[in-house]
Amino acid sequence: MRILVTNCNTTRSMTEEIVRGAEAAAAPGTAITGLTPGWGPESAEGWLDSYLSAAAVLDTLRGYDGPYDAVVMAGFGEHGREGARELLDTPVVDITEAAAHLACLLGRRYGVITTLDRTRDQIEDSLRTAGVDRNCAAVVSAGLGVLDLRDERRTTEAFLTAAARARDAGAEVLVLGCAGMTGLQRTVGERLGMPVVDGVGAAVKLAESLITLGLTTSRTGGYARPLPKRRSWASPG
Amino acid sequence: MRILVTNCNTTRSMTEEIVRGAEAAAAPGTAITGLTPGWGPESAEGWLDSYLSAAAVLDTLRGYDGPYDAVVMAGFGEHGREGARELLDTPVVDITEAAAHLACLLGRRYGVITTLDRTRDQIEDSLRTAGVDRNCAAVVSAGLGVLDLRDERRTTEAFLTAAARARDAGAEVLVLGCAGMTGLQRTVGERLGMPVVDGVGAAVKLAESLITLGLTTSRTGGYARPLPKRRSWASPG
Amino acid sequence: MRILVTNCNTTRSMTEEIVRGAEAAAAPGTAITGLTPGWGPESAEGWLDSYLSAAAVLDTLRGYDGPYDAVVMAGFGEHGREGARELLDTPVVDITEAAAHLACLLGRRYGVITTLDRTRDQIEDSLRTAGVDRNCAAVVSAGLGVLDLRDERRTTEAFLTAAARARDAGAEVLVLGCAGMTGLQRTVGERLGMPVVDGVGAAVKLAESLITLGLTTSRTGGYARPLPKRRSWASPG
Amino acid sequence: MRILVTNCNTTRSMTEEIVRGAEAAAAPGTAITGLTPGWGPESAEGWLDSYLSAAAVLDTLRGYDGPYDAVVMAGFGEHGREGARELLDTPVVDITEAAAHLACLLGRRYGVITTLDRTRDQIEDSLRTAGVDRNCAAVVSAGLGVLDLRDERRTTEAFLTAAARARDAGAEVLVLGCAGMTGLQRTVGERLGMPVVDGVGAAVKLAESLITLGLTTSRTGGYARPLPKRRSWASPG
Amino acid sequence: MRILVTNCNTTRSMTEEIVRGAEAAAAPGTAITGLTPGWGPESAEGWLDSYLSAAAVLDTLRGYDGPYDAVVMAGFGEHGREGARELLDTPVVDITEAAAHLACLLGRRYGVITTLDRTRDQIEDSLRTAGVDRNCAAVVSAGLGVLDLRDERRTTEAFLTAAARARDAGAEVLVLGCAGMTGLQRTVGERLGMPVVDGVGAAVKLAESLITLGLTTSRTGGYARPLPKRRSWASPG
Amino acid sequence: MRILVTNCNTTRSMTEEIVRGAEAAAAPGTAITGLTPGWGPESAEGWLDSYLSAAAVLDTLRGYDGPYDAVVMAGFGEHGREGARELLDTPVVDITEAAAHLACLLGRRYGVITTLDRTRDQIEDSLRTAGVDRNCAAVVSAGLGVLDLRDERRTTEAFLTAAARARDAGAEVLVLGCAGMTGLQRTVGERLGMPVVDGVGAAVKLAESLITLGLTTSRTGGYARPLPKRRSWASPG
Repeated sequence: MRILVTNCNTTRSMTEEIVRGAEAAAAPGTAITGLTPGWGPESAEGWLDSYLSAAAVLDTLRGYDGPYDAVVMAGFGEHGREGARELLDTPVVDITEAAAHLACLLGRRYGVITTLDRTRDQIEDSLRTAGVDRNCAAVVSAGLGVLDLRDERRTTEAFLTAAARARDAGAEVLVLGCAGMTGLQRTVGERLGMPVVDGVGAAVKLAESLITLGLTTSRTGGYARPLPKRRSWASPG
Repeated sequence: MRILVTNCNTTRSMTEEIVRGAEAAAAPGTAITGLTPGWGPESAEGWLDSYLSAAAVLDTLRGYDGPYDAVVMAGFGEHGREGARELLDTPVVDITEAAAHLACLLGRRYGVITTLDRTRDQIEDSLRTAGVDRNCAAVVSAGLGVLDLRDERRTTEAFLTAAARARDAGAEVLVLGCAGMTGLQRTVGERLGMPVVDGVGAAVKLAESLITLGLTTSRTGGYARPLPKRRSWASPG
Repeated sequence: MRILVTNCNTTRSMTEEIVRGAEAAAAPGTAITGLTPGWGPESAEGWLDSYLSAAAVLDTLRGYDGPYDAVVMAGFGEHGREGARELLDTPVVDITEAAAHLACLLGRRYGVITTLDRTRDQIEDSLRTAGVDRNCAAVVSAGLGVLDLRDERRTTEAFLTAAARARDAGAEVLVLGCAGMTGLQRTVGERLGMPVVDGVGAAVKLAESLITLGLTTSRTGGYARPLPKRRSWASPG
Repeated sequence: MRILVTNCNTTRSMTEEIVRGAEAAAAPGTAITGLTPGWGPESAEGWLDSYLSAAAVLDTLRGYDGPYDAVVMAGFGEHGREGARELLDTPVVDITEAAAHLACLLGRRYGVITTLDRTRDQIEDSLRTAGVDRNCAAVVSAGLGVLDLRDERRTTEAFLTAAARARDAGAEVLVLGCAGMTGLQRTVGERLGMPVVDGVGAAVKLAESLITLGLTTSRTGGYARPLPKRRSWASPG
Repeated sequence: MRILVTNCNTTRSMTEEIVRGAEAAAAPGTAITGLTPGWGPESAEGWLDSYLSAAAVLDTLRGYDGPYDAVVMAGFGEHGREGARELLDTPVVDITEAAAHLACLLGRRYGVITTLDRTRDQIEDSLRTAGVDRNCAAVVSAGLGVLDLRDERRTTEAFLTAAARARDAGAEVLVLGCAGMTGLQRTVGERLGMPVVDGVGAAVKLAESLITLGLTTSRTGGYARPLPKRRSWASPG
Repeated sequence: MRILVTNCNTTRSMTEEIVRGAEAAAAPGTAITGLTPGWGPESAEGWLDSYLSAAAVLDTLRGYDGPYDAVVMAGFGEHGREGARELLDTPVVDITEAAAHLACLLGRRYGVITTLDRTRDQIEDSLRTAGVDRNCAAVVSAGLGVLDLRDERRTTEAFLTAAARARDAGAEVLVLGCAGMTGLQRTVGERLGMPVVDGVGAAVKLAESLITLGLTTSRTGGYARPLPKRRSWASPG
């Protein structure tokens, strides 16, 4: 199986980290290919970044011509998922929904630990439209920007503090709310005594599951193929 | 007062039509300026178009340097609204929410008549995140593409058929679910014996209201100013 | 344009204050007329007062024979709105819903600062039936009775304390939850660094908007004209 | 036990009918006293009537000085319930909520058969604020005015037609949606093969239950005693 | 009237206590018969116990051949209620829903005080499927196991502490969240100044009400009689 | 990996069919072991069967002493899932939730095609507590009992008829609502032009995913290990 993994920002080192997380979760026969958008924000932290990222990721996907069996979109809470489902014939799995789907199997309520407060509404919206918000107890921010996550020790401490708030709000399972947190599930899971779900790994497993079962996006409703028309993807300036 | 009105697609004739609708609703001292994105889809009909449109409209807004007091975003159910709120210091009013806000004042339940079935989920999501979905009885499609709306007679008939379905679903007020329908409220309103709200006019009045009251977007939460960082807005290709 | 503004209680000085607030928001050509019910409670603080007020305000409206183009009902969270919509042919805008409609345009979640705890359920019910409760983060009371609001300094302090609680609950925008607070939006808005919406001003702008757009209450559903029958409005005692 | 039953309108013959229904349900030792408001609408059919009725019923209750142990308010979907809870120290049970409470014990979803379409929103609001709307499958109108219910045969036929619609919507239990339908539960119940709950009987049993258990309205929240103040209950005209 | 009351566990002393509580609430002519399952858990505290209890209670009911007019199921938050409605022709009232139904009549929001944290989700689910969760402000645990409730003083203190948390969450009325708490309503009610509802007493009154009104479970939907088939109720081991 | 699959009824041929379905979906290294309860109903169709089945399945699981890495519970809409999570240290995946989780990835709304009308409420409850009901458009019954499913042709026709109703209700993806339908997804999927998800296959893939990611049920909340106590699993009779 061949799975494309799209980073939501232009930072290549983050794509590489995501690919490592994806490979760690993948089945023996699965090949992971990382894609970094050629334009967009260097990190996605807020609405403006998210809409910019969505267009850039979709542009990247429509321009990619290698073979693949499924796409994993590695932007937690970022826009674009539904556009990729329209655009592509393979299954598309977003790490936001993937983490939530698996978290629901592990406890009655889950919490999401995100980077900055400003990303909370997007994440809540994304979980809701994906249909998995019902058992979300809280989205709590660690107070760290995406690019700050490189400092592992500081990230771990901030995560644990936020995790305690999520647990107080009823969470029995935690979700890493940023692709850049991939790997953290091992460190913090043991210290917390709670399952911690990484969206990248979760999405890879769900993508493999859909491929194995021969399932892909329905074309009978809102994800019908895009209508043929003139679309310009590049600023004329 | 100076209000910018952004079309969500690249079709200039549609921008002109929207500007006419906006001017018809504007107060005597209000100047309307229409903006057509320099890139994006020629019409927005679905998720892919909507995400492409969102980035193009935001790019257009960040590049505009004339003075203005508020922005009206004239894409019904299209993405981008929250990004513009982050980006700009003036009030931002989207025609989707604007029509719904006024419709709520006119009856207990309203219905939206949109173009194609495929736009329904986007509209429902947009109403929900705007906080005005509670009294929406139905989003019904007329089965016409955005650019088909130029045929006035066919549009009127399709609208009336869809309106009957919305009324059966409990709607007491109707909303024109596409900026390209502007003007139709007069024709069909009388034939239906129900109030019909045009989002463009509604958004102009709400924008004027906010300007007069000295109100603009809160910066204390999710619409804080975008963080400074590298953002590339154009495909390098 | 001629807008009637009804106070919900019998205290004339409060009607005058409301009229001043309405005039401050009104467009140049708009004339404001204040109406004080000839019976009812001297202030509305709770269910009993609210139901008494509703009948008294409706009685006042049915007895008023001057010309007007819209009605603004200036009782925050009080009953009667739907009855006025049945009774009158002009648009009717209630300050509760009006403030919430504008607040939704300014942030993702708003909070209402009301007078006493006992008014909370009424306000929540009123926002819900108006269709604008979705993004209400909290209704917080300042712990002051309606007639205590005359002490400006004490009111400001109590408001700021309550505002902090609303902000903690997620509010990014505040709403003045009593017609008697009109004017406070200027004082506290700056100190809080958040937009503060006054329902009286908001309702005046929304009423003007509906008049300009030629929109009024739908008669096809629950707001059909009252059936002709015997109704006695006065206690025989 | 002594139970006061308040009619919501000024039609004495309807009060008598309600009293007969209440007596048929009452325990051996329970005395029923019917109260007819001295003012208000001759029948309650819509928002205006309902608000007028609410004030008139509250006025009637505050003026009644005989002894009693509980109050049953016999207006289906009418306003005023919460005001009576503030005003009185005895338990207050409204027939709307009472019928729904018992219906929930008899099937997973219940339907309400009301008189006219225009009463639906009020009934839905009343069920919701009472906390028993969750399992309401539908509120269906029989298309008959309150005073038309005197024609028993026509009422039975209209009820059966509406009942079929409620059943199609998922109702397994029916509720008589007007105090004037009292007695119909016996006639139609057998023909439908479904339980039919009459609110008057239900409210009497619930009132007796609360009296026996020594329970009455909580004073710690929204139903605290009304604040002392000037209230005028009568139009000065 | 003859009411069967089923304990949800195998502890006979608890059945006796429940019977005493039921008798204290019953009308003069009502005879209470307590049933203790011959198998199952000695106390029900969690999902495993609840499912085991449900089968054991249903087995007990199907094997009981004495005459009775209604069944009260005395396991707070335990499963099985809907199965009993399918199995039996008499009304079935569960103490969870019964307490909530009466609590809704006494205040706008109620709170449940349960034994252990682990029972919360079950109780919330049970209230929801019964259709009475809307006005539940909180389910708070006292931190005591079912069999610990025998220590009256400790129980009272733990209850009062939990009650304060429920009140902070908005509860105006409290519900005893375990059949083993029966009797506590008198002790703590006065100290708290709030109504406290015991589910056993509430269920007896509701069962009597349904019997008097001639109402029983609807057979037209999900509670149709069980299909005839082979069912084995006992482990072959 | 070793996955236990529990049938919810005592019919061995159905267990075998389920095992075949599970094996068809399993990864190369996965061993499937089917378990048939030694007691319980021969098919589960309604509340009574479901509660009986839950206890029997839990009894079967607690008595099984072979090694395994995860459990798949193959009763669509049946009770017991949460009890197994308490009881066992391995992940537990129920086919109801599993099918819904994957369906959410394939379209905006899914529909469930079940056997008999009487199972609908159970399925809706199960989806809700699992946290995946939000995007369920409809649960539609095919009007066939569980054991009738052996007639393949009749089942296919009934399924297609029900599928059309689900599609009209907005479903873009279908879910086989009974373990006995396993295999049907291939036949009907092509004829419908829509993805059809089989819960048994879905649950196997999700169980494998959790095993690979090293995730299992959280013990910090409602799924804490059962308290030690006396539990009797067998009717003494």
